[in-house]
Amino acid sequence: MNFKDELIKYAGIINTELEKVLIKDDVIEKKLNDSVEYSLMAGGKRLRPVLMMATYKLFKEDIDKVFPFAVSMEMIHNFSLIHDDLPGIDDDDFRHGKPTNHKAFGEATAILAGDSLLNRAYLNLGLELAKSDIDRDLKIRSFNELSNGVDRMIIGEYVDTEFEGQKISSDYLEYMHKNKTGALIKASIRIGAILAGASEEDLEKLSIYGENIGLAFQIKDDILDIVGDETILGKPVGNDVEKHKSTFVSKYGLEESQRILENVTKEAIDIIENYPNGEFLKELAIYIKDRKK
Amino acid sequence: MNFKDELIKYAGIINTELEKVLIKDDVIEKKLNDSVEYSLMAGGKRLRPVLMMATYKLFKEDIDKVFPFAVSMEMIHNFSLIHDDLPGIDDDDFRHGKPTNHKAFGEATAILAGDSLLNRAYLNLGLELAKSDIDRDLKIRSFNELSNGVDRMIIGEYVDTEFEGQKISSDYLEYMHKNKTGALIKASIRIGAILAGASEEDLEKLSIYGENIGLAFQIKDDILDIVGDETILGKPVGNDVEKHKSTFVSKYGLEESQRILENVTKEAIDIIENYPNGEFLKELAIYIKDRKK
Repeated sequence: MNFKDELIKYAGIINTELEKVLIKDDVIEKKLNDSVEYSLMAGGKRLRPVLMMATYKLFKEDIDKVFPFAVSMEMIHNFSLIHDDLPGIDDDDFRHGKPTNHKAFGEATAILAGDSLLNRAYLNLGLELAKSDIDRDLKIRSFNELSNGVDRMIIGEYVDTEFEGQKISSDYLEYMHKNKTGALIKASIRIGAILAGASEEDLEKLSIYGENIGLAFQIKDDILDIVGDETILGKPVGNDVEKHKSTFVSKYGLEESQRILENVTKEAIDIIENYPNGEFLKELAIYIKDRKK
Repeated sequence: MNFKDELIKYAGIINTELEKVLIKDDVIEKKLNDSVEYSLMAGGKRLRPVLMMATYKLFKEDIDKVFPFAVSMEMIHNFSLIHDDLPGIDDDDFRHGKPTNHKAFGEATAILAGDSLLNRAYLNLGLELAKSDIDRDLKIRSFNELSNGVDRMIIGEYVDTEFEGQKISSDYLEYMHKNKTGALIKASIRIGAILAGASEEDLEKLSIYGENIGLAFQIKDDILDIVGDETILGKPVGNDVEKHKSTFVSKYGLEESQRILENVTKEAIDIIENYPNGEFLKELAIYIKDRKK
């Protein structure tokens, strides 16, 4: 199967699983559930669950074992996007070519939809893990990776807002990005590896692969905010400049950022090429570097 | 020991446990941790952890068994207060006699401090349960009670904001309060009972006790918003009227609300009087009814 078809297949699998956590009942709080569904099913790339599944497949075939964590990870990622877009944080109007959650449902509902997604991610995980026959220690380690990853993501988000409009050192920029974007990407890869019973050595190597593609993802985001096509991106470009955000481009310029992007992608590829089943994750690193949205 | 001393003793125990989850390090995100500490250690009544411990003590003595859930419950309660006070939801300036979190730390930090508290509640619970020798099934059931309670609380909060300023039926009012205030109170009691290995019959009875004191707590809140003393409450009165909130008082008037309060308190007491060790929980029901803040 070629890379694009495999990517679509993985995303399809996770979309089917996500459908199962949606609440379609005609309850008093229906609008809250609608707003959760609006964001969760908005057509994101499902990068984190795909990474989790693909990493698991480096070692084992039965990828349904990762579904509880993959679903919760994607719910948590979408919680973070809803809150990130809020008027009190980034105040963004568009995402994936559609109005952001608070633009569509109002601010109070958006705050609570985000809260609900984060909580339901754990609620769902608890229910699924109770039924799962994964080894107890692997469950505990993976749960720990997830909750720590979310903690780091929130910290990165905080650093981003707190130092908006200020010139920050490259150490701060790296700390921010490592946490804000990198933490959940790295956690996804680590959870995939842990659940597959990977050795500590493999876990270490794949973590470095994860750090590199996490960094690549953020640098590409920063580059796209300058040179991207709004109709493809589904959101306005120039946002970061307007908000005086510290980005790779504002710090290093476009050309140097592109060079760093090429470098970290190469580092990721150098690691993953050592794995017999690593072709998809290699292509994924290239896809992250070359994507238009 | 008299009731007040025992209440203070319980609150002291939970405060000591909460101190352990605070992060005091001098990290880049120090302000985020400070804002979490600001709300978590603001001197709340610790009602939910106290209920959990006191319910456990109806059956067993070793109350340290409930600490992981008691700590997480209080963290989650405080997350809900921070988000409840946000400009995008209730827009309140004071709580416990101090500026609300967003007034003290800014809106972005308050949103993220709430997110962080909710997530760290689960992070902490995962770490503690991994070490705990509680029976696996009891852990799973309690985790499920917690996450479902939080889900219901968020739903109640949503109904409160969504129907603000509208005349709502008594069914809606009850649904809102049962979830917004009642869900975490009931969950605290149920978790205490479950962890102590209570029978299904006891669990059912104590749930009804919990529903009644949850309702009593909310009715008293609504009454205090009209006739309370601002200097004791630590926040302005008349807030609900100003925001056209649907409350027991707006629906039934002050006198009838007081009568309902007496009734639900009596129903709670009738249940708890059947327990040989139920004296504290009986006094607690009276305390909730008669409190000044």
